[in-house]
Amino acid sequence: MKKVAFIMGSDSDLPVAEKAFETFKEFGVPFEVHVYSAHRTPVEAKAFAENAQKNGFGAIICAAGKAAHLAGAIAANTVLPVIGIPVKSSTLDGLDALLSTVQMPAGIPVATVAIDGAKNAALLAIQILAVSDPSLSEKLSASRSAAAEKVLQKDAAITAEYHL
Amino acid sequence: MKKVAFIMGSDSDLPVAEKAFETFKEFGVPFEVHVYSAHRTPVEAKAFAENAQKNGFGAIICAAGKAAHLAGAIAANTVLPVIGIPVKSSTLDGLDALLSTVQMPAGIPVATVAIDGAKNAALLAIQILAVSDPSLSEKLSASRSAAAEKVLQKDAAITAEYHL
Amino acid sequence: MKKVAFIMGSDSDLPVAEKAFETFKEFGVPFEVHVYSAHRTPVEAKAFAENAQKNGFGAIICAAGKAAHLAGAIAANTVLPVIGIPVKSSTLDGLDALLSTVQMPAGIPVATVAIDGAKNAALLAIQILAVSDPSLSEKLSASRSAAAEKVLQKDAAITAEYHL
Amino acid sequence: MKKVAFIMGSDSDLPVAEKAFETFKEFGVPFEVHVYSAHRTPVEAKAFAENAQKNGFGAIICAAGKAAHLAGAIAANTVLPVIGIPVKSSTLDGLDALLSTVQMPAGIPVATVAIDGAKNAALLAIQILAVSDPSLSEKLSASRSAAAEKVLQKDAAITAEYHL
Amino acid sequence: MKKVAFIMGSDSDLPVAEKAFETFKEFGVPFEVHVYSAHRTPVEAKAFAENAQKNGFGAIICAAGKAAHLAGAIAANTVLPVIGIPVKSSTLDGLDALLSTVQMPAGIPVATVAIDGAKNAALLAIQILAVSDPSLSEKLSASRSAAAEKVLQKDAAITAEYHL
Amino acid sequence: MKKVAFIMGSDSDLPVAEKAFETFKEFGVPFEVHVYSAHRTPVEAKAFAENAQKNGFGAIICAAGKAAHLAGAIAANTVLPVIGIPVKSSTLDGLDALLSTVQMPAGIPVATVAIDGAKNAALLAIQILAVSDPSLSEKLSASRSAAAEKVLQKDAAITAEYHL
Amino acid sequence: MKKVAFIMGSDSDLPVAEKAFETFKEFGVPFEVHVYSAHRTPVEAKAFAENAQKNGFGAIICAAGKAAHLAGAIAANTVLPVIGIPVKSSTLDGLDALLSTVQMPAGIPVATVAIDGAKNAALLAIQILAVSDPSLSEKLSASRSAAAEKVLQKDAAITAEYHL
Amino acid sequence: MKKVAFIMGSDSDLPVAEKAFETFKEFGVPFEVHVYSAHRTPVEAKAFAENAQKNGFGAIICAAGKAAHLAGAIAANTVLPVIGIPVKSSTLDGLDALLSTVQMPAGIPVATVAIDGAKNAALLAIQILAVSDPSLSEKLSASRSAAAEKVLQKDAAITAEYHL
Repeated sequence: MKKVAFIMGSDSDLPVAEKAFETFKEFGVPFEVHVYSAHRTPVEAKAFAENAQKNGFGAIICAAGKAAHLAGAIAANTVLPVIGIPVKSSTLDGLDALLSTVQMPAGIPVATVAIDGAKNAALLAIQILAVSDPSLSEKLSASRSAAAEKVLQKDAAITAEYHL
Repeated sequence: MKKVAFIMGSDSDLPVAEKAFETFKEFGVPFEVHVYSAHRTPVEAKAFAENAQKNGFGAIICAAGKAAHLAGAIAANTVLPVIGIPVKSSTLDGLDALLSTVQMPAGIPVATVAIDGAKNAALLAIQILAVSDPSLSEKLSASRSAAAEKVLQKDAAITAEYHL
Repeated sequence: MKKVAFIMGSDSDLPVAEKAFETFKEFGVPFEVHVYSAHRTPVEAKAFAENAQKNGFGAIICAAGKAAHLAGAIAANTVLPVIGIPVKSSTLDGLDALLSTVQMPAGIPVATVAIDGAKNAALLAIQILAVSDPSLSEKLSASRSAAAEKVLQKDAAITAEYHL
Repeated sequence: MKKVAFIMGSDSDLPVAEKAFETFKEFGVPFEVHVYSAHRTPVEAKAFAENAQKNGFGAIICAAGKAAHLAGAIAANTVLPVIGIPVKSSTLDGLDALLSTVQMPAGIPVATVAIDGAKNAALLAIQILAVSDPSLSEKLSASRSAAAEKVLQKDAAITAEYHL
Repeated sequence: MKKVAFIMGSDSDLPVAEKAFETFKEFGVPFEVHVYSAHRTPVEAKAFAENAQKNGFGAIICAAGKAAHLAGAIAANTVLPVIGIPVKSSTLDGLDALLSTVQMPAGIPVATVAIDGAKNAALLAIQILAVSDPSLSEKLSASRSAAAEKVLQKDAAITAEYHL
Repeated sequence: MKKVAFIMGSDSDLPVAEKAFETFKEFGVPFEVHVYSAHRTPVEAKAFAENAQKNGFGAIICAAGKAAHLAGAIAANTVLPVIGIPVKSSTLDGLDALLSTVQMPAGIPVATVAIDGAKNAALLAIQILAVSDPSLSEKLSASRSAAAEKVLQKDAAITAEYHL
Repeated sequence: MKKVAFIMGSDSDLPVAEKAFETFKEFGVPFEVHVYSAHRTPVEAKAFAENAQKNGFGAIICAAGKAAHLAGAIAANTVLPVIGIPVKSSTLDGLDALLSTVQMPAGIPVATVAIDGAKNAALLAIQILAVSDPSLSEKLSASRSAAAEKVLQKDAAITAEYHL
Repeated sequence: MKKVAFIMGSDSDLPVAEKAFETFKEFGVPFEVHVYSAHRTPVEAKAFAENAQKNGFGAIICAAGKAAHLAGAIAANTVLPVIGIPVKSSTLDGLDALLSTVQMPAGIPVATVAIDGAKNAALLAIQILAVSDPSLSEKLSASRSAAAEKVLQKDAAITAEYHL
């Protein structure tokens, strides 16, 4: 199976990132984690992106805050799908990272998920791998059913508790 | 090759959408276009999503404006990667569609591109198909090189014209 | 008397929702509570909406955060009045939920109240039932008078305390 | 049948308002139109609201721009459901009117629809009247089916035209 | 000397308001405080505004949050200068109150100060009274000089402490 | 009677400003117009403010766009009431000018009106002068009545035209 | 004298950029113009930045719209001062480009000017060169005086024309 | 070596400012700190700016919150490069200070850094001095290398810890 790369712009993004790692483990999808900064380690970031395809990666997730250029900088150097997670920082409630990640110019897309949406980034990467992997696709369907079941159990409990 | 579905919430989104169609044609990627509304034709939208995988689709693009629920409604009914294009409408400059598309709750991701970013949505769909299709991947690389070459030609012209 | 349904997208919305339940109890209006997600349990959400009218409901309140599609998804499957409560989540201060709830396309309205405005959602549902129920309408008027009286008592206390 | 009142804050809101009038005519719902300003004619606005219930109205729609207080001012003087349409003006793209209309304090709800959303305001008023009027409810369902049919015709045309 | 009225929409605005009261005491300007809600006590709010001029007031300050209509409702019923303080509430960081207060339609101005800016509201009211009261005007000048002196003392301390 | 000064930051603000001049003429209030820039002519702006009180002015209106510092710079040099008009420019729809004008720090208030709200700025200045001028106050009341009358005429016309 | 580089992300930024070129010519400051995209020509952009200092540049101006990464990408590869011009594009009124340019993480500053503020970008570059060039500094002072003089001429004309 | 001035609008900005002081010490760049308010001490602020160049300063940093006019007021009185730090205050998350600092009118630039971005402001000032100081330029390059090295050490640690 192809691997997923998870790159964060700073190790302060780790608490957000960990929800992605749990998801990869739940689905048994191999992943590799890196800390690269588009601005502080541009050489290493570029080198990683250029070699990602031949190194066996199928998708790259980038998490960064503020003027979040990491996903765009990676996407500029690979034709693999790049998923961007805008990370909320101490000001502007994540809006800066969201716009810096999603508003990419024509030619270089970044598949952007919600602010701090690391779990969905991982799921999206898995969905991408699953396009050509029916067993992974079935695992995704099963996970959806389990999640729905959990909601319905809560529904039953709350319906019983609150009413007039 | 798997097909790409392009669903728009209203035929008024057609001018935005056409840039995606051109891109599919440029890359020789088969695509199918639909007009479904998450709110006005929920039954058909759901049926399409549920059957998309077995009908040979590898990715679904959804374009919608205002409280843009289309991509999320489709994504809730398939494990295929769903790409959302927020469409600018007459008020709020596309911010409503952007937030309605990208801020999905954990469990159901939508790969969001820029407001009115249909060309990038198409490229992202092609990148997803290319993960397991080396010849498509090479076409993407070649297209990148051609785009860079165009920029460099403009650079040469402008450098020559403006200076002191 | 017709019942009011209160649907929340996640049980984490319960602290916001409880102000609505208190209001229903204060007015003696029968209500039923559910946890359904537009994205994680689309089938159950749709089924509830389709049957709500014949099951004796007169209005449906939906509370959801982020890309809040719940109210719209319910409204797409019933002609009962649907009231949307945008719920504030960890980013963007509720603006995402507000725009996702209120900016509905022509054809499918959602009656949107303030961010986290569960009490007003309940009052609005009661006002809707009261259109054809004079005794409920009188209770609403009496409640208004009592609320005004409370404000005026505070006015008297504060006027006495602060002055020069 | 109860009537619907449509109040606009200024006659410059007429182009937005007319979509509501068409909808009332389509459904055969009696309506009355007024121009009252919360700030320039507060006396008349208040008098209208206080007498609306006994004058046979079942819902009141208010359309206003900028610091849009009209819906709130009307709602403060009646227990009928009040629907607010935020109107886009020359600055801020309607955001000021949206927040001024929807962010009502606890006790006095305003059922807010999309910026410039006059058609949905009318439909919501009709849905409110239909809670106790089965024949109006059936008309709403029929109208929904017709709207869905129109979307599906566009779908068929566009699917045939665009593909590879 | 004419009095200043300070009206708050809710007694929860008291912590913000107290900075105004201190300022009135510092300048020896008589003031009266009220809690009136534009929506919950519209009758009393209107009556206060209509009688303010003949009751000896020279300016009215209104503090309110969310869809802050109080200043506008008061201004609609008096030709005295009305000063609006937008109060920050639990969502949207005060932006809703700011736009609801400042974006008044032509004909009925509200003199808006910063979010939670009660001290400046009081100073502005005093400046208005001082237009025809030279001794109050001199007190304002003296207060400005004292404030400047304080800044310069801090400047001296900090310049001495931090340098290379 | 005291005069009102109207200062604009650039002569490109003239189309916005002219509504203020008409209002001064309608009320017979003497006014003087200047073009001073807080940044390009700081010396002249400061000199004007320092001398405004002794030169017979009772209020100063400042209109400026973008990072609109003019009102604040004038207010820092006089204890006369200073009214700020945020002017919409080619980007950000006036939000930059609004925040730059209204969010003044404690100590130096600016009485801010709506974006491009020159008529209300003039009315506010006249209301300030009218605090100690009963005949001007009566003119304001009369003008309010005339404006209300106009609205009611439009109401009558529109009520007659649109109904079912 | 050191040169200034002006890099635009796309030749569509040329109308904005030309105000900078005029300014360089007015001050006799040598400049060189390039079209490089952070995403489409990352190699050339990086190479230019790495060599800029030894190629005789003293400052680099970057103009880009949407998710404007150009200034940051250049700044990551040089210790020369980098000035960023956020360019307004077809959606979001330039807010996306502003936040993407200014909100740089600690370590790599970008000196950001106003949206579409090419003239100020050029002046800032000249001010930077003038720190060690007294004759350039004098030209800047003279230009300031001339600009002030122009404002004062407009002031005289407008003061004479509008008054009562 | 020329000095850098750091001016804050209030001593409450000190916690933000200290990151700049550390940076100056790290690079051995002489600096001087002041507390001046554009509004409360306009005379001293102006005097400082007018004399800064002849007093040996090469750049001036200004930190201020809310309607942050300080950087603009200083820039209006000197042709030295002025760097603005928008400071986050209790409302609006720093957006007011950002727009008030960056959106300067043509003629008077302010080099704006991120909200609360004091470290980058200091680095930018040092980069400006380094344009004519090769040894300072080398220190900047060395500091960049050290920062990159730190990121890569974190990368190694995290890559080893998280994977599947």
